[in-house]
Amino acid sequence: MKKTIGVLGGGQLGKMLFEAGSPMNTNYIFLEKTENCPASLVCEHQILGSLNDENKINQLGGLSDVLTFEIEHVNVAALIELEQTGKPVIPKPNVLSIIQDKGHQKDFYSTHNIPTLPYKISATAELESDIKSWPDERFVLKHRKGGYDGKGVQLLSKNQFQKLLTNNDKSIQSPDGYIIEKMAKEAVEVSVIVAVDQQLKSISYTPCEMVFDPKSNLMDYLIAPSRLDKKTNTAIEEIATRTVESFKSPGLFAVELFVQKDGKIYVNEVAPRPHNSGHHTIESSYTSQYEQLNRILLNQPLGDTSLIQNAITCNVVGPEEINGPYEIDNLNQILKIPGVYIHLYGKATTSPNRKLGHYTILGSNTQELENKLNKVKKLLTVKST
Amino acid sequence: MKKTIGVLGGGQLGKMLFEAGSPMNTNYIFLEKTENCPASLVCEHQILGSLNDENKINQLGGLSDVLTFEIEHVNVAALIELEQTGKPVIPKPNVLSIIQDKGHQKDFYSTHNIPTLPYKISATAELESDIKSWPDERFVLKHRKGGYDGKGVQLLSKNQFQKLLTNNDKSIQSPDGYIIEKMAKEAVEVSVIVAVDQQLKSISYTPCEMVFDPKSNLMDYLIAPSRLDKKTNTAIEEIATRTVESFKSPGLFAVELFVQKDGKIYVNEVAPRPHNSGHHTIESSYTSQYEQLNRILLNQPLGDTSLIQNAITCNVVGPEEINGPYEIDNLNQILKIPGVYIHLYGKATTSPNRKLGHYTILGSNTQELENKLNKVKKLLTVKST
Repeated sequence: MKKTIGVLGGGQLGKMLFEAGSPMNTNYIFLEKTENCPASLVCEHQILGSLNDENKINQLGGLSDVLTFEIEHVNVAALIELEQTGKPVIPKPNVLSIIQDKGHQKDFYSTHNIPTLPYKISATAELESDIKSWPDERFVLKHRKGGYDGKGVQLLSKNQFQKLLTNNDKSIQSPDGYIIEKMAKEAVEVSVIVAVDQQLKSISYTPCEMVFDPKSNLMDYLIAPSRLDKKTNTAIEEIATRTVESFKSPGLFAVELFVQKDGKIYVNEVAPRPHNSGHHTIESSYTSQYEQLNRILLNQPLGDTSLIQNAITCNVVGPEEINGPYEIDNLNQILKIPGVYIHLYGKATTSPNRKLGHYTILGSNTQELENKLNKVKKLLTVKST
Repeated sequence: MKKTIGVLGGGQLGKMLFEAGSPMNTNYIFLEKTENCPASLVCEHQILGSLNDENKINQLGGLSDVLTFEIEHVNVAALIELEQTGKPVIPKPNVLSIIQDKGHQKDFYSTHNIPTLPYKISATAELESDIKSWPDERFVLKHRKGGYDGKGVQLLSKNQFQKLLTNNDKSIQSPDGYIIEKMAKEAVEVSVIVAVDQQLKSISYTPCEMVFDPKSNLMDYLIAPSRLDKKTNTAIEEIATRTVESFKSPGLFAVELFVQKDGKIYVNEVAPRPHNSGHHTIESSYTSQYEQLNRILLNQPLGDTSLIQNAITCNVVGPEEINGPYEIDNLNQILKIPGVYIHLYGKATTSPNRKLGHYTILGSNTQELENKLNKVKKLLTVKST
């Protein structure tokens, strides 16, 4: 019997999930409030509606054999109710309850002896005093809920915090409270994709490293495998796998970690879905993160996670100065470079920092990858039309 | 401006063309008389109609920026007329005029000094006498037109021919006449995909070898690169490239050749479209044959044709004893084998020898590939439902 996968969210992750299922003609239905969302470019089965709308979620459940989500911000209560009626939801919705709230997430790591940076959960009324008594001059301030793509996460000094407080700045207003967290010290940021099948057997991918631009301090690109030594990479994979196994749920997870110069490894956070840091697996690995999730959803055996070639992935993001329709310039020049794969998400308009696509570069070593990356970067331009 | 590719035919080649264009959101429209054709599983834009219907072809032309075909049996006159109005058709329809008629095709090779086996074009009235005077006892008899997937091509002895003639056998009835052709001697069959861009620059893929079952004498699987020595592979690639360049047309072409034990290489025939022998490029090569054709159609630069890993491709065909709905058995067992990629064409029913899908196996050497192949073969079963 051919099964139908219901997906909450119809963004690029949903689109790439569909693309991975296409060779075997897997059926999908996407719930998404935006018409012409990325997934709708490839799949004609879309339910228009909010990811918080219980009725729409139930409708999706009724039409699907199994449900998953490609974004964390969904109505978890509705998913839990559906699960209780016997509808498989993967990952389990209780994982979302833990992950949606960064306070619960940090407590979960503490309870399960998963190394994570020291933190304090703080309510609005106590925030000022909690920060005053925080032992370090600099710290990370996170909203407990609703942060996404770096929103709701700030690196601050006590002074900077006071200024924001005085100005009643929007960036520190969080109705659900805060996490104050210790800064990682001279750390490399890595990510590990871990897949867990319906029998709770797990398998992990090679760690991928996030490389930051030393000037802007923004993420520049991702490289797999990470440039850390083999022993460290193995230790990272082990911690990531143990973290994901603690959730006792099938699914595909991305674990973000800090690896300090002193060798200490801390779990930062987990995304219970395909992740930016696993895009490269489409071209670089025997089984992509998307095919892997399809296998899990369809109760098929896990695929080989080995890397065939080293890879770099870089996002195509909307520039600061453009809002509206756009096009990618110099595409033909870029396509001349061997081993470069461009993915465009088909979004009609750009806005500052909006993810419009990504590209993956294959190569046999870091030098070759970075040379190609520099060529692509010089060429690739998002321009308004 | 986003371009639309119009495709005559909506079979599995069209489906895989769409899949290759999906990451960059290429638009397609398929003309195909069968509802629920393989391409329609992934693309909602289908014109229902015959590939011989001039009006439907014109309608497709009106909606598309560029036209191509994934099957040779189309109305060439209609395409030539469209081309004369300025609509790009790739490959050029005059290539189809040559290829659709095996007599013209053989004459074309002779005229262009392309090595091909000795042949005689024969009309129905002269067939008997032409065969009588043919120098060899065994020969190949081909219908000039309409052959497909081995139909209309027979290896015969003079005796066998006489029996068929006496019985007025259907298999030797060809209203457009015949080709009598010399049999290749102790030959290996290979195929080369050659891509030609809109500036008529060409690039070729590594030769792929067709391996036949010694018992049934039917094609068993395809292996890339061919197991011939490097020098021979280079010679094959050169002849294939020269053959395709003779057509002076952009497009993606598959050149099938015979390589005799005595070292002689002969071109058998050319398919002006993606080909079975290029399916493996989806997983094995930097640029798949489908992405390559998309690049050509969109006037983008040609992609790197290098092989990343060795590969075997094997067809999933309908067994002799089943007509009707079917399913693939042991799929989960097969998915446990690393480096195996299954493509199903989504055809609702099977019939004897119908191509239902294919699988590609990646590996580093022939032994590894054949070991995996034997495992898959033991498992994969098409059963009726």
